[in-house]
Amino acid sequence: MTAIDPDTRPAGVSTPVADELPPTLLRTLPGGAYTDAGFFATEQERILERRWMCAVRVADHPNAGQFATVHVGRESVLVVRGRDGGLRAFLNSCRHRGALICTEDAGAVRRNLQCQYHAWTYGLDGKLVAAPNLSSLGDIDRSAYGLIPVASREWLGYLWVCLDDDPPSFDETVIGAVVERLGDATMIDNYRVGDLALAHRETYRVAANWKLIVENFMECYHCATIHPELTEVLPEFADGLAAQYYVGHGAEFATEADGFTVDGSAGFDRLPELAPEQDRRYYAITVNPTVFINLVPDHVIVHRMFPVSVDETLVVCDWLFHPDVVAAGADVGAGVELFHRVNQQDFEACERTQPAMGSRAYRRGGVLVPAEHHITAFHDWITEMCSEG
Amino acid sequence: MTAIDPDTRPAGVSTPVADELPPTLLRTLPGGAYTDAGFFATEQERILERRWMCAVRVADHPNAGQFATVHVGRESVLVVRGRDGGLRAFLNSCRHRGALICTEDAGAVRRNLQCQYHAWTYGLDGKLVAAPNLSSLGDIDRSAYGLIPVASREWLGYLWVCLDDDPPSFDETVIGAVVERLGDATMIDNYRVGDLALAHRETYRVAANWKLIVENFMECYHCATIHPELTEVLPEFADGLAAQYYVGHGAEFATEADGFTVDGSAGFDRLPELAPEQDRRYYAITVNPTVFINLVPDHVIVHRMFPVSVDETLVVCDWLFHPDVVAAGADVGAGVELFHRVNQQDFEACERTQPAMGSRAYRRGGVLVPAEHHITAFHDWITEMCSEG
Amino acid sequence: MTAIDPDTRPAGVSTPVADELPPTLLRTLPGGAYTDAGFFATEQERILERRWMCAVRVADHPNAGQFATVHVGRESVLVVRGRDGGLRAFLNSCRHRGALICTEDAGAVRRNLQCQYHAWTYGLDGKLVAAPNLSSLGDIDRSAYGLIPVASREWLGYLWVCLDDDPPSFDETVIGAVVERLGDATMIDNYRVGDLALAHRETYRVAANWKLIVENFMECYHCATIHPELTEVLPEFADGLAAQYYVGHGAEFATEADGFTVDGSAGFDRLPELAPEQDRRYYAITVNPTVFINLVPDHVIVHRMFPVSVDETLVVCDWLFHPDVVAAGADVGAGVELFHRVNQQDFEACERTQPAMGSRAYRRGGVLVPAEHHITAFHDWITEMCSEG
Repeated sequence: MTAIDPDTRPAGVSTPVADELPPTLLRTLPGGAYTDAGFFATEQERILERRWMCAVRVADHPNAGQFATVHVGRESVLVVRGRDGGLRAFLNSCRHRGALICTEDAGAVRRNLQCQYHAWTYGLDGKLVAAPNLSSLGDIDRSAYGLIPVASREWLGYLWVCLDDDPPSFDETVIGAVVERLGDATMIDNYRVGDLALAHRETYRVAANWKLIVENFMECYHCATIHPELTEVLPEFADGLAAQYYVGHGAEFATEADGFTVDGSAGFDRLPELAPEQDRRYYAITVNPTVFINLVPDHVIVHRMFPVSVDETLVVCDWLFHPDVVAAGADVGAGVELFHRVNQQDFEACERTQPAMGSRAYRRGGVLVPAEHHITAFHDWITEMCSEG
Repeated sequence: MTAIDPDTRPAGVSTPVADELPPTLLRTLPGGAYTDAGFFATEQERILERRWMCAVRVADHPNAGQFATVHVGRESVLVVRGRDGGLRAFLNSCRHRGALICTEDAGAVRRNLQCQYHAWTYGLDGKLVAAPNLSSLGDIDRSAYGLIPVASREWLGYLWVCLDDDPPSFDETVIGAVVERLGDATMIDNYRVGDLALAHRETYRVAANWKLIVENFMECYHCATIHPELTEVLPEFADGLAAQYYVGHGAEFATEADGFTVDGSAGFDRLPELAPEQDRRYYAITVNPTVFINLVPDHVIVHRMFPVSVDETLVVCDWLFHPDVVAAGADVGAGVELFHRVNQQDFEACERTQPAMGSRAYRRGGVLVPAEHHITAFHDWITEMCSEG
Repeated sequence: MTAIDPDTRPAGVSTPVADELPPTLLRTLPGGAYTDAGFFATEQERILERRWMCAVRVADHPNAGQFATVHVGRESVLVVRGRDGGLRAFLNSCRHRGALICTEDAGAVRRNLQCQYHAWTYGLDGKLVAAPNLSSLGDIDRSAYGLIPVASREWLGYLWVCLDDDPPSFDETVIGAVVERLGDATMIDNYRVGDLALAHRETYRVAANWKLIVENFMECYHCATIHPELTEVLPEFADGLAAQYYVGHGAEFATEADGFTVDGSAGFDRLPELAPEQDRRYYAITVNPTVFINLVPDHVIVHRMFPVSVDETLVVCDWLFHPDVVAAGADVGAGVELFHRVNQQDFEACERTQPAMGSRAYRRGGVLVPAEHHITAFHDWITEMCSEG
């Protein structure tokens, strides 16, 4: 059992938080879950390297030979477009002496993937195709020395990867999470996310544990305090109840808001296949462990998190609009700016929370008010994933 | 038992220091006490978080709502002036989800302390006074969710804090240490330190373990080597015997020194209530674990240490003069410069000692000559504090 | 037993590399040997602090009182030229309170080595000669408090040091390694390396484990891929077989190469005592653990490595030419540039290998092709040195 035991504090240090909580309050995870490097290592093994992680946007690498490298758990994963049009994922390490095959974040090779150390050469499908003096290695089974494949699956225009040898069901753990939140598969299908175009991308380096970012995204009790622009557009958020608390619920736009924009100005035509009840509404979805999906009538915002260490997380945020909007060079600034500010406000809140996670005041954790009670499900999931078995 | 065992070195590495010492030499702590991160963690728990630590100067935060944050052991402590004029200390962490209440080193709030994440709001006395939807939390005992108080006590114009739930006697461990050194309570009272005004403050970041700085301050065997200006004013220091070695003894100024200044120039009028035998003398006092007090006729110098890691220490040094001197804008430069140089010389010596603490040459520690034998009391205190029980 | 066990990976993570290898492939060390801080600590104790390490070039410090400090394993070693002309090595730590005696990389003292903290003073032969109030220490045996000596030996114009109390045979472990490679002691003696002059020195900070640098130097399977200039001069290197694979073999210069230069231009007269069969040949020698010697007709290149941490290594490379060449101020640029480029190419390859050593793809290590099989001897030596006993 690798879970954090809040009672390992030395004798002489008292428990500042009462053992008994009133029914309106639930306990969070103990502070050590956000500060202990060993617990983070367990999360890497048991969560980040065993679940489906959203790695790269498929359309960013359209041509054969185009590749990207991303960090998933403790691994560098190489994603490359094959000559057959397929996007594949591999461990980014040569089978000979281990060197990284590709060192850039993204790029393109002409024909093959060649290790720049001893020139072992792999096809875009990962197969070993050449090596200096390979003929002298006549007895080796070339197929046994291809790049090591990583399970992958395309969905919503992204390549999702899983480092587990026996990945959990994608339909259940990814699609299921979205459908469970929205209540119906068509509710996500209608946005045709995979057909949208990238209008803007921001990358944030957040000095906070990744779980603080998830918890922040899951609740809206903080919205009135730190998100003035967002609550202007979504008045119900000022009441503190997160949209995702209710199955199928989307937060309704304010009467005076013409669009999901920083100044309430009109956005663009609603996406063509949306149902009428999806118009003028914002839906937020958390896909454990590291993906957030935000749906509004004229665009979709996708957050991918890449936990770097126990107290640092990289967040990549994509703003996706209808291809015609992007092709026309329309000004998406007012839409992008709204959630960019929300991101900055949220990440700043997480960064002022992280330093106190090691305090004796938070040794047994803090408390969740009713509007946050649903976060308990996330905490239970973390605890279960990190437990032995 | 967490103390450093010098005999854990692997087989095959011999002991360079003889086991038997002549009576004139005493052994220091082993080198590991200055380099082992685990031993430093023990010191944080058993010493820095259990003893009275000098946190802030009271007069720096005179008005209701003014606050400061300081690091004590591993905690961020929030000190705030109440509407009733009292200065109070709390753990700087919101009782809800743990965020830091204040992030600046010092500042002021208007009415209350409000967490910038979810707006839980505390009075300047630490009581929980408001929270969004707090009415829905009707069953919680608001008094149970105030900021967690930290024991505090004002003395010499500073707020001292203690993180232990059951603090040791302030009179014994702090005032007692001063009186024991000076031989008489009036000897410190005469300086009316709490009424003096701050003329200058320097902050030093020293790349050395905090105990090296204490040991350095405790002895004067090094004075002839590295403190030319100081030994000019205090000739007996050139002989290597620290003033604090003798109860009640103050080092006498050189005949040719008109004041405690870098060039021997005259200082200011002696503080009004000093006894005649306190004139033209320098007294140095160590208050374990992290405070040094220096008394001369016309000013007082107070060092507060904030250990950051096993090999880094922050030292804040205040020069306090009579309020009339400061109010008149008199030039205190020659007085400040003397001890600023002493500080620089001492900290440089500590910084050239720290890197060798990990050497096999220092595995069992070094030796104390007779002029340093009193440091053994400090070493014994460290060992006792860090031992189980 | 401190060796890395590749099977400690948590359950659920499979072994991507087949257990059985074909006879043409041999297994390398597991990845953990290049990433585990504990294994590096073992290497420091068992290898870097027990074997002869090449510390400083003798001629860099010709005069009495000149000194240098170098890091060997975890120790700072002080090398100083005595009044009798001898070069001696000591632990760089005062016997009193441990401070570093010298803090600069190199310098000179006039008469003695004096600790800048309390003025304990040592002769250039390390003997304690003075200390403040030393007379009061009458009963101490001054000879017991000299600087702690480190075993040293001059060879090839360098001072080699060994931190072990019972150093291994220099003749066997250092000279023997060279002779074993060249087949004959005269083969190295002919270069009169100790009489050559330093024409150029480069220091490289390499973000890779020191063993990757050794392995890289030992094989030439990578030469065709990353060393275009070197294979131009030494065509047989393009075939992938390292010169040092064969006893006594030197790689022959290309017919069209007039010298060992970056552009094939002529070098200088061959060193006067070379045997005819040593002309127009390049010999490479590895002296475990951290020295490489490169011999060409008109100069010698010596690499000394100083491992800093598990993933960082400092490499100092000296280019030595005949004293007449250096005295004449001849342009050695074309010769220096050739191996400087080789160094840069090699270290870049090591730096792209290091990040993947922690991958599950390399958990059991990679494979050695026949041209690399001799590296197994190095791996076996590492394993043996790090094993208990």
